Amino acid sequence: MADEVVLLDFWPSMFGMRVRIALAEKGIKYEYKEQDIFNKSPLLLEMNPIHKKIPVLIHNGKPVCESLIIVQYIDEVWKDKCPLLPTDPYQRAHSRFWADFVDKKVYEVSRKVWTTKGEEKEVGKKEFFEIFEILGGELGDKHYFGGEIFGFVDLSLIPFYSWFYAIETFGEFNMEAKCPKIVARAKRCLQKEIVAKTLLDQKKVYEFVGQMRKRFGLE
Amino acid sequence: MADEVVLLDFWPSMFGMRVRIALAEKGIKYEYKEQDIFNKSPLLLEMNPIHKKIPVLIHNGKPVCESLIIVQYIDEVWKDKCPLLPTDPYQRAHSRFWADFVDKKVYEVSRKVWTTKGEEKEVGKKEFFEIFEILGGELGDKHYFGGEIFGFVDLSLIPFYSWFYAIETFGEFNMEAKCPKIVARAKRCLQKEIVAKTLLDQKKVYEFVGQMRKRFGLE
Repeated sequence: MADEVVLLDFWPSMFGMRVRIALAEKGIKYEYKEQDIFNKSPLLLEMNPIHKKIPVLIHNGKPVCESLIIVQYIDEVWKDKCPLLPTDPYQRAHSRFWADFVDKKVYEVSRKVWTTKGEEKEVGKKEFFEIFEILGGELGDKHYFGGEIFGFVDLSLIPFYSWFYAIETFGEFNMEAKCPKIVARAKRCLQKEIVAKTLLDQKKVYEFVGQMRKRFGLE
Repeated sequence: MADEVVLLDFWPSMFGMRVRIALAEKGIKYEYKEQDIFNKSPLLLEMNPIHKKIPVLIHNGKPVCESLIIVQYIDEVWKDKCPLLPTDPYQRAHSRFWADFVDKKVYEVSRKVWTTKGEEKEVGKKEFFEIFEILGGELGDKHYFGGEIFGFVDLSLIPFYSWFYAIETFGEFNMEAKCPKIVARAKRCLQKEIVAKTLLDQKKVYEFVGQMRKRFGLE
């Protein structure tokens, strides 16, 4: 029986993009089902009753939730092609540590920049620069975010690149001037065709973020 | 060369206890180095410069941080004895999902109960019961939290049992009456000698929490 793979996702989601890149890297065919996160479908609520969030990967009818858990699942099921995590346990722990750091910090500080104004925004920007300074320091001379091979850490971070234009525009700073190492490494990731094809047009995300700001009464 | 394993930890930590149980399950000898979390040692700052938190496992000089990442590392390095994660990818994803749920929710709602008072405490208690209701529902008829074998999910949750007396006393409720399924399952885990030996005396944790409440100006 052929694998039946369905992805419940929402187009601007950086978490969803991680899964889309992983599926593309592995060459897995799947059905993409766009979700309305403001009016959640019965299918989404059935498949992720705990968090009620996208992305959800449904593999032969069984759901897997939480983007980094989904990516590890994909790597373990389709293990023969394009490994996403290294094989060495120490390197695996290192990759998990940095992907977890991105999960815990990057989304939150990015959100602070575009969902606030005035002094709160300035505090958010300071935290944003601190987090990206740490990430920039970790990069060192490595080719990709996570090492010499495109993998788990790159995949966890690169979707944020689609959001950079919105963040720097609403945050009133220049991403390349403030975080040159991060932007350089992101551009290196973009040389991979799969990444370039999966990431979104930054202007489209900017428009979406603008609509969200209106919804939050910020504009 | 024999493995050199050092654990930087702080005795009441539920995150540290996870690692202590995993090391005990695998029969790994290690040096325990108690840390003062209010006056962090140069060793802790050197080994975990990003989060500056215990637990840190130092294996042959190299640090691994974040408790669930450490447990997975231990499981991957010492893979021949007492597997902590299942081998099936779907079951692994399921275990990771619930351990992650404990990580994201249980610590925070527990903390809300014992670090607040008045109306804030009542809100915290409501959230606490909701989270443990979800966990209780997930248990179903399984022998342990995570399935038929003591593993990753049990290990992520059971250290909170040491804190139950403090939480129910300062929260002014009866844990067994409010969360009977959880307490029953916790008691089943305690029948494992390694778990019983690693978990702390609930009264000692209660004393520690009392001191913390004084520090926070709550008593």
